[in-house]
Amino acid sequence: MAETLTVDEGLTFESGAHVAPLEIAYATYGSPDHPVVYISHALTGDADAAVWWNTLIGPGKPVDTERFHVVCANILGGCKGTTGPASTNPATGERYGLDFPLFTIRDMVAVHRALLRSLGIERLYGAVGGSLGGMQILQWALDHPDEIERAVLVCSTARLTAGNIAFSKVARHAILTHDAMDVARMMAHITYVSEESLRRKFSRNRRRPATGMTLDSDFEVEHYLDYQAKIFLERFDPHSYLYLSRVMDYYDPFPEAEVTPAGRFVLISFDSDWRFGTEHSEFILEQLTALGADVTHHEVESPWGHDSFLMNVPEYHRLVYQALR
Amino acid sequence: MAETLTVDEGLTFESGAHVAPLEIAYATYGSPDHPVVYISHALTGDADAAVWWNTLIGPGKPVDTERFHVVCANILGGCKGTTGPASTNPATGERYGLDFPLFTIRDMVAVHRALLRSLGIERLYGAVGGSLGGMQILQWALDHPDEIERAVLVCSTARLTAGNIAFSKVARHAILTHDAMDVARMMAHITYVSEESLRRKFSRNRRRPATGMTLDSDFEVEHYLDYQAKIFLERFDPHSYLYLSRVMDYYDPFPEAEVTPAGRFVLISFDSDWRFGTEHSEFILEQLTALGADVTHHEVESPWGHDSFLMNVPEYHRLVYQALR
Repeated sequence: MAETLTVDEGLTFESGAHVAPLEIAYATYGSPDHPVVYISHALTGDADAAVWWNTLIGPGKPVDTERFHVVCANILGGCKGTTGPASTNPATGERYGLDFPLFTIRDMVAVHRALLRSLGIERLYGAVGGSLGGMQILQWALDHPDEIERAVLVCSTARLTAGNIAFSKVARHAILTHDAMDVARMMAHITYVSEESLRRKFSRNRRRPATGMTLDSDFEVEHYLDYQAKIFLERFDPHSYLYLSRVMDYYDPFPEAEVTPAGRFVLISFDSDWRFGTEHSEFILEQLTALGADVTHHEVESPWGHDSFLMNVPEYHRLVYQALR
Repeated sequence: MAETLTVDEGLTFESGAHVAPLEIAYATYGSPDHPVVYISHALTGDADAAVWWNTLIGPGKPVDTERFHVVCANILGGCKGTTGPASTNPATGERYGLDFPLFTIRDMVAVHRALLRSLGIERLYGAVGGSLGGMQILQWALDHPDEIERAVLVCSTARLTAGNIAFSKVARHAILTHDAMDVARMMAHITYVSEESLRRKFSRNRRRPATGMTLDSDFEVEHYLDYQAKIFLERFDPHSYLYLSRVMDYYDPFPEAEVTPAGRFVLISFDSDWRFGTEHSEFILEQLTALGADVTHHEVESPWGHDSFLMNVPEYHRLVYQALR
């Protein structure tokens, strides 16, 4: 269960905007005497890393809560306990909504670091993140080159492509102009999986007897998307979705990076990932290498697309285990 | 400019539903004395084939209007002159809208054949279609094995995958529950192009000075999607979009095919097409071969994704020219 740290003086964002107070929802696992591994979550995650990433994190797992002190916080702008557009604006007593200032991944990292300072942690044995989680860790390592000894970036990116931004745009347009976060989520969900994983799960199977025709859901894959949209509307805030997707679009840390990070980087991509596929990790590899960093990249075979980082993929888990050994 | 044929007695659909009168908007090019080449258009096209497919069709072009009599009609269910959900229901005096009966690609073919009968054409020298256009020609050739001498199917499919249906579902959900055909079109547009084509056109270029952050359109690719959605809302009917996308989902002609088509088939796919890519054409190849048909498949290199069929791709145009020689 997540705890909450309140930073009364708040935080000044990179843009100059100031938000106070700042609340940070976080969870820890394992003894504080053990080396610290920080987990950064992806777009719609939360602090309870050992729940949503239970394939990777737990006793005896690659991120072993019996050997490490694992820390995770809900990200800035999220809606799972850390301050974001769904929080109350103390100036008005209402939710911030679209009055919440835009922020950057550097601001997210500032929140993680504020949390660690309050916990008395100055340096990380390891930091692990998938997708947007990896983006945070990369920014952190570039800005604070001595703070992360082992950085593991799974299916992450150093900059979204025009195609990534295009999907992001459609999702925002659906939410802003049609209040249609269900549509945004359905579409995003398709980008998280692979054609092969949809084929294995659903093929062209139909739920009704295969005689009639309808504009409603009929194929199993349609019912699946209906379900994904329904549970998402119950658990996530549309404004958080807007802000967090936009943070990703603007992210582009390497042009500003000048100092060689001291830690070691392990990059992992999945061959079936068409959201942040191998070419994204290869770009990070190339840029980190140019900075003189210690970095390796591994492409792992997996049929599950971008979602592979949440799945039991033995080769990927072995690589994470080794990276933290 | 399209002309209109009115079939007073209408058409009984495969489902048993009857629609009357049936109007068919069509265009012809070139002398009626020349061999007839029928063009089937894709999801949102119209009868004016030499306009929207002017890369391929015209004097001296691969589908040469000086050598062929070219015929094209707006498809059943469209909103460009042929009867569809946007037409007036004579029983009510109002637009059909969602009262229009669901129909099949076989019904579309019945409309094409009714048109040709009225024009005194019994047999086609050639038939050419891209995407949904190719699906119509394939159904036609399977059901009427002697009517098409040369069938050219460009980036077409014999059955949508679970991933194709998933995108189709999201578009329908956007329209049916949020009146958001703009969202549907933006998303569909992404599936028509390739990552490479978006990169070449837009990269991560921004329209505003690259300092501020906004939730509105900022990257050039976002403005492009805004524009695509805007012009589409002006030119297309949401109900037609619903029906035509659904027709495609249900399409699966080979399980019923028993007779060997007498004509020759040329299948063309594009290596960057991730909507109906090479694997779709390979499936058609395999199925037609099993039926004993004369069929060849060519994968053409092109950076433009599914939209390549509308572009000037010399190798593709050479193949169409040869197929009709």
